[in-house]
Amino acid sequence: MIPGPIEFTPDVLRAMGMATTSHVAPNFIEVFGQALERLRQVFLCPSGQPFVVAGSGTLAMDMPAANLIEPGDKALVVNTGYFSDRFVAVLERYGAEVTQVRAPAVGDAPPLEEVEAALKGGSYKLMTITHVDTSTGVGTDIKSLAALGRKYGALVVVDGVCSVAGEEMHQEEWGIDLALTASQKAIGVPPGLALVVAGPRAMDAFRKRKTPVSNYYADWNEWLPIMEAYEARRPSYFGTPPVNLIWALNVSLGQILDEGMDARFARHRRLSDAFKAAIIALGMKQVPVSPQVTATTLTVPYYPQGVDATLLGHVKEAGAILAGGLYPSIKTKYFRIGHMGAVTDSDVLATLGAIEKGLNQVGYKFEAGVGLAAAQAALAESPRL
Amino acid sequence: MIPGPIEFTPDVLRAMGMATTSHVAPNFIEVFGQALERLRQVFLCPSGQPFVVAGSGTLAMDMPAANLIEPGDKALVVNTGYFSDRFVAVLERYGAEVTQVRAPAVGDAPPLEEVEAALKGGSYKLMTITHVDTSTGVGTDIKSLAALGRKYGALVVVDGVCSVAGEEMHQEEWGIDLALTASQKAIGVPPGLALVVAGPRAMDAFRKRKTPVSNYYADWNEWLPIMEAYEARRPSYFGTPPVNLIWALNVSLGQILDEGMDARFARHRRLSDAFKAAIIALGMKQVPVSPQVTATTLTVPYYPQGVDATLLGHVKEAGAILAGGLYPSIKTKYFRIGHMGAVTDSDVLATLGAIEKGLNQVGYKFEAGVGLAAAQAALAESPRL
Repeated sequence: MIPGPIEFTPDVLRAMGMATTSHVAPNFIEVFGQALERLRQVFLCPSGQPFVVAGSGTLAMDMPAANLIEPGDKALVVNTGYFSDRFVAVLERYGAEVTQVRAPAVGDAPPLEEVEAALKGGSYKLMTITHVDTSTGVGTDIKSLAALGRKYGALVVVDGVCSVAGEEMHQEEWGIDLALTASQKAIGVPPGLALVVAGPRAMDAFRKRKTPVSNYYADWNEWLPIMEAYEARRPSYFGTPPVNLIWALNVSLGQILDEGMDARFARHRRLSDAFKAAIIALGMKQVPVSPQVTATTLTVPYYPQGVDATLLGHVKEAGAILAGGLYPSIKTKYFRIGHMGAVTDSDVLATLGAIEKGLNQVGYKFEAGVGLAAAQAALAESPRL
Repeated sequence: MIPGPIEFTPDVLRAMGMATTSHVAPNFIEVFGQALERLRQVFLCPSGQPFVVAGSGTLAMDMPAANLIEPGDKALVVNTGYFSDRFVAVLERYGAEVTQVRAPAVGDAPPLEEVEAALKGGSYKLMTITHVDTSTGVGTDIKSLAALGRKYGALVVVDGVCSVAGEEMHQEEWGIDLALTASQKAIGVPPGLALVVAGPRAMDAFRKRKTPVSNYYADWNEWLPIMEAYEARRPSYFGTPPVNLIWALNVSLGQILDEGMDARFARHRRLSDAFKAAIIALGMKQVPVSPQVTATTLTVPYYPQGVDATLLGHVKEAGAILAGGLYPSIKTKYFRIGHMGAVTDSDVLATLGAIEKGLNQVGYKFEAGVGLAAAQAALAESPRL
């Protein structure tokens, strides 16, 4: 129950362990082509160009920076934590002049007015938003932020690593020019794939660049013909595709689309609401400062007074693996629970049960079962779609 | 029987399909640490620094160029085919001034004297050699070439994508400063891992660079602390490691070391000799012009007179999947058979049987069984180690 790698479905794992086909075998070409088409549907971006490349989410962040930024370009980063800090570093690597709009405090998101003021004051080629900061559990209002970016002519880039296929995102309808994720989060495939969907404005800006891309492996000039070829059910070669991961991706995307995007978003919201109700009932504070800036793909509580990271060992013994803190200034004070992908009511209850047992072990005083009861009540109030 | 992705062992595939652990789970940390140590043994480079990163072999080629080349550096490419051409492109991307020593003809390797003359004439920071060009089956004498590179002060970079753990290479003893490969070749792991081992001179040159690395994802400044941490059995984060692929890598490296490097090189040589004896007995010419420039990890015959790529369809029906040509100027005139990794006498005979059946179908005249008999005789002459 960590915020990635998540737990994968048996069918996805079976695809991982299948005898590897050739990357030019007819059945693999069909699967890669299908996966590209399905990615467009999962990102809700019918006009988008998908890129599926062997790499981590870090490569998925590198791609828009390497391909869209030219030295001297101005970029605006809406900063909500560790992964926004990273985008600053990535953009600067390619010569961007980066301005940041920072949240007033850890666990918060910058107010829309401040973002608008920054956009009004500068002429930004590109703006990045971290949809869900995996380090803090802060979720941003990407719909409103993207609208602002569009209004002021910036390309809108969304880091959806901890969101795509879990947190609600309608890439095309919301005017997001590029969204990216990694396979091991809500997309539901073991780590090893960088996934990017670039809309027409992003591809257009890429085609108009004047300087060569200073990163060979991430260069869309090399990858675009490959993606177009496989989608047209023709093989093509720039690097050997990670065959088993792509078979697994196609299985998972099929499962996601079978559930339906609206139902999937609603399920993540429902389970998140139940989890957070339990955390509140247990008397714990969360890192995100308000429900408006709280993600649904994970829950990020502070340890209660007098409790530290030893809690996680007890929770693990009781049956659930959780993640520690990541954001440097408060790293030792909080922990993280992912509830993304093929997660059910039972998983939420089992995890909360383990957390209650752990809290009990470390001597935290609370009414036994109060978290579970709150979750159960929340689940009952919000029936499954 | 294509030259990658090869056929993987059941244990490797089982590791691929295992429930994914956390990238900071104690058992995964141990496995990643072990894999790094084993990589050093498989590359026969006890002083080397291994890098294991999610990506394709293309990324493995990108890494030395991005990290060792600064704009204006001179580089020498010993060109033996498609993948040497690629190294030219990769090096130029980072501002290298590239000189090439080309083979006198397709299927040949440049004479050592010409390489020495070039090295003498220029002052090269770095020299690249393609150990085995997967496009033509040309193998180079990396031992002698590396000695030349050393003599004239160039860092010696070997593209071992189609060689490492199959073709004989003693990285440290032979003075190779950096060797690279991809997981899906003789290393025996499904595609998705870029594998690099950099020796002390390469790491030293990297540490002395004056300009920042212009590629975020490939930057050793980011990856070195991660590799050092996992080898010291501590977790660390730059990108989520491709967990299942690394479990599979550790299994395969264990199998390789159980066989022993000398025995493994000898087995590849033995099976290659048998395969090539059969091809000769069948009256077919090979793309590599002489045994001195012929790789042992694959066999690359021209189609006989009057035969074209339709042969491969018939061979497939008869039970073996082979690869078509790749080198542009002769692409339609030849085909490729990989015999890397966990390949046995039986695989060689089964593949030759399918080739004979295919040749028969397309009307090629030959004495039935002559290829098989030649292979069988060669196998008998060279007993297993």
